[in-house]
Amino acid sequence: MVQTKFILQEKDMPQVWYNIQPDLPVPLPPVLHPGTGKPVTPADMEAIFPMNLIMQEFSPERHIPIPEELLELYKIWRPTPLYRAHRLEKALQTPAKIFYKLEDVSPAGSHKPNTALAQAYYNKQAGIKRISTETGAGQWGSSLAMACKFFDIECKVYMVKVSYNMKPYRRIMMETWGASVVPSPSPDTRIGREILERDPECPGSLGIAISEAVEDAVTHPGTKYALGSVLNHVLLHQTIIGQEAKKQMAMADCYPDIVIGCVGGGSNFGGIAIPFVEDKLNGTHKDTRILAVEPASCPSLTKGLDAYDFGDEAGMTPMMKMFTLGHQFMPPPVHAGGLRYHGMSPLLSHLSRLKLIEATAVQQIETFEAGMQFAQTEGFISAPETNHAIRATIDEALKCRETGEAKTILFCHSGHGHVDMASYDLYLRGKLSNYEYPAELVKEAQKGLPKVNV
Amino acid sequence: MVQTKFILQEKDMPQVWYNIQPDLPVPLPPVLHPGTGKPVTPADMEAIFPMNLIMQEFSPERHIPIPEELLELYKIWRPTPLYRAHRLEKALQTPAKIFYKLEDVSPAGSHKPNTALAQAYYNKQAGIKRISTETGAGQWGSSLAMACKFFDIECKVYMVKVSYNMKPYRRIMMETWGASVVPSPSPDTRIGREILERDPECPGSLGIAISEAVEDAVTHPGTKYALGSVLNHVLLHQTIIGQEAKKQMAMADCYPDIVIGCVGGGSNFGGIAIPFVEDKLNGTHKDTRILAVEPASCPSLTKGLDAYDFGDEAGMTPMMKMFTLGHQFMPPPVHAGGLRYHGMSPLLSHLSRLKLIEATAVQQIETFEAGMQFAQTEGFISAPETNHAIRATIDEALKCRETGEAKTILFCHSGHGHVDMASYDLYLRGKLSNYEYPAELVKEAQKGLPKVNV
Repeated sequence: MVQTKFILQEKDMPQVWYNIQPDLPVPLPPVLHPGTGKPVTPADMEAIFPMNLIMQEFSPERHIPIPEELLELYKIWRPTPLYRAHRLEKALQTPAKIFYKLEDVSPAGSHKPNTALAQAYYNKQAGIKRISTETGAGQWGSSLAMACKFFDIECKVYMVKVSYNMKPYRRIMMETWGASVVPSPSPDTRIGREILERDPECPGSLGIAISEAVEDAVTHPGTKYALGSVLNHVLLHQTIIGQEAKKQMAMADCYPDIVIGCVGGGSNFGGIAIPFVEDKLNGTHKDTRILAVEPASCPSLTKGLDAYDFGDEAGMTPMMKMFTLGHQFMPPPVHAGGLRYHGMSPLLSHLSRLKLIEATAVQQIETFEAGMQFAQTEGFISAPETNHAIRATIDEALKCRETGEAKTILFCHSGHGHVDMASYDLYLRGKLSNYEYPAELVKEAQKGLPKVNV
Repeated sequence: MVQTKFILQEKDMPQVWYNIQPDLPVPLPPVLHPGTGKPVTPADMEAIFPMNLIMQEFSPERHIPIPEELLELYKIWRPTPLYRAHRLEKALQTPAKIFYKLEDVSPAGSHKPNTALAQAYYNKQAGIKRISTETGAGQWGSSLAMACKFFDIECKVYMVKVSYNMKPYRRIMMETWGASVVPSPSPDTRIGREILERDPECPGSLGIAISEAVEDAVTHPGTKYALGSVLNHVLLHQTIIGQEAKKQMAMADCYPDIVIGCVGGGSNFGGIAIPFVEDKLNGTHKDTRILAVEPASCPSLTKGLDAYDFGDEAGMTPMMKMFTLGHQFMPPPVHAGGLRYHGMSPLLSHLSRLKLIEATAVQQIETFEAGMQFAQTEGFISAPETNHAIRATIDEALKCRETGEAKTILFCHSGHGHVDMASYDLYLRGKLSNYEYPAELVKEAQKGLPKVNV
């Protein structure tokens, strides 16, 4: 029998998160205060985050221990399995070896609970009673809803309106785990009310929803804000994915030539990639290609400006140096709602700047074609976001068929598509569209980039 | 660290299915031909099933080897994890130890692929090019669709119309795996057309859908029929669940005092229970309670007649001795579509007759309450069918709280509820109903039981 899954036991689970910051050859550019334009201090961020998470955001420690109570909760679904894609390889007639890390097996169906539970834990430690957040497709919101329920914290989710209407199942999941969910823009915040006044039909965006959730945290006592991607501490929590994957690749007696993940804000990609970037930096595996895959219609890494920008639409968050399409850019309504973000994690932007990672952009219909081929060979139905990683994986494997190279490819299967079947329905009926890169809209949005003086 | 999951490696997967027939103290009553009323022969069944599966249906062998090619495919998700429900136990303040076998992790989201793949495999071996089947909630149809795709067999699914309309995501899943799906009753069969003529608004039932699928198989060359529950060979394939669970309970240094599963036709319950019935029969664990849980509105085991009846609405199938509400009984529209069946597996009916298993019936709202408590403690959102097993498990654990007994309870977590969120929405909005046992309708339906002379 050939082995399909590489399975770790609970006792083999990593006990620390890997913080790449001390290993960076050039430190991260400072984060700037939205009011003063000066580098933010931890104290500046206390209005929206608890201090223990802020300290992780700036930590100089290479390894940060995962608290015991959190490890207990990770065991609900971790370690996750690593798969060898035997049947996909055969269908592609490729000499490449394809592996994927299946993060779908969490109760929320994606990698997001890795950080949702961690953030709920640290908020609980800090005495926080209520957390506000935004969500696009709902992967993050549902993960945080579950995490808050486990730690007995109230949870309020601002869900991008177009997703709220298109993905009712995600909304119901959040409510099943006890969260309160409103479509964003909502009448519950000043910013939401202003936008609704200007445009009652506004479909919303992640940028707007972040503005609302941040305002909510700032204006409600005992409430902090939580973000499911972009920030250093979020990617830190996700490094458990790549650390497990390294152990499992060793069980398979392999090391990846290419590591692939889809990127919106960057959390699942960072999670699988950063422990492999560590090996590039320490010289044990210098030549590994690390490939981020984004939607052609929202291509921050491949087409964005490397500039300071806000994380949200209203310009309430600190300014971060990152690849950005402009915080006022409204991405086209692709079904991969989790990838509809104007910016890119500053840490991943930095790795891109240092040429430690590369990026590619793919079109929507092609991602669903890849997802269909994956479902019909490997069985699993994938989230539209994940289909981006599958598309790039198949493309790399097909290149190997041409060149005859037996490369080893590892990708992060970030989530299942069980609640995204309406998107598959459109694909199956030939009603899915591609979206050209909206160059003019981006140019317009980038006019709104903040002026900074560093 | 306490252990949450008990994980087997692929090499630990059972290599045989356990056939209980040779161990039964009293043999199963014969199955009767619908036309002649005489015991059916294997040849009689060849119109709808391939001979290799028919031979399994009647096999006297205790252990039937699982073919190598099938083991390879089982490895897509098997062995499945066994969980200790630490957080649920704590919430219930019970001294009971609760374990569950998580069958959700298959790509189709339930235990059904255990037999779907096996049936597709044997049909392929027999040269069959096309399979017809019925599905209620869609768990079975989607599993067979996936299995047929893996074996390059065409798949036609008759989906009970009320589910077709209420659960579009399941329909889209089947189509994603390449199946053709129609709402039943459909204009594609003579029986469907007749029913539609009498009642164009007929919501359908499993019994009707089975009639259509059987007619389809009989009238299309190269086509056989596949059934996802009820029959001996189906329960045989599912015994891999209980065999794995026994190994995993041993890893946890435990043996269950009570084994629980929900029952419609009986496949997940049979799968987990039968290997434990083996231990009752061979005397190693005589006192294990084995508890089947059914909906109060469709209670074949607890209120049905022990009689010969047809498996389908139109009376096309052989007649089986089973607990039945009458093949013309139309169960109320509970959300656990997979449990809306008039009869009960003849094998499980026989085990009930021999007092080797017991049964209980529960109300719909109470099952969703149980599912909510499970989601909020263990994390996983369960199928409405599975919520029946959770309800009974919680009730047994609460009895332990009263008596102080530290019983060990094992239940089969047969599937996830990701595509059943509309039902949770109704529950959360207080719009879910209970259904009284429809005694008059059952009495009426049972007038239609066939007369037999054995």
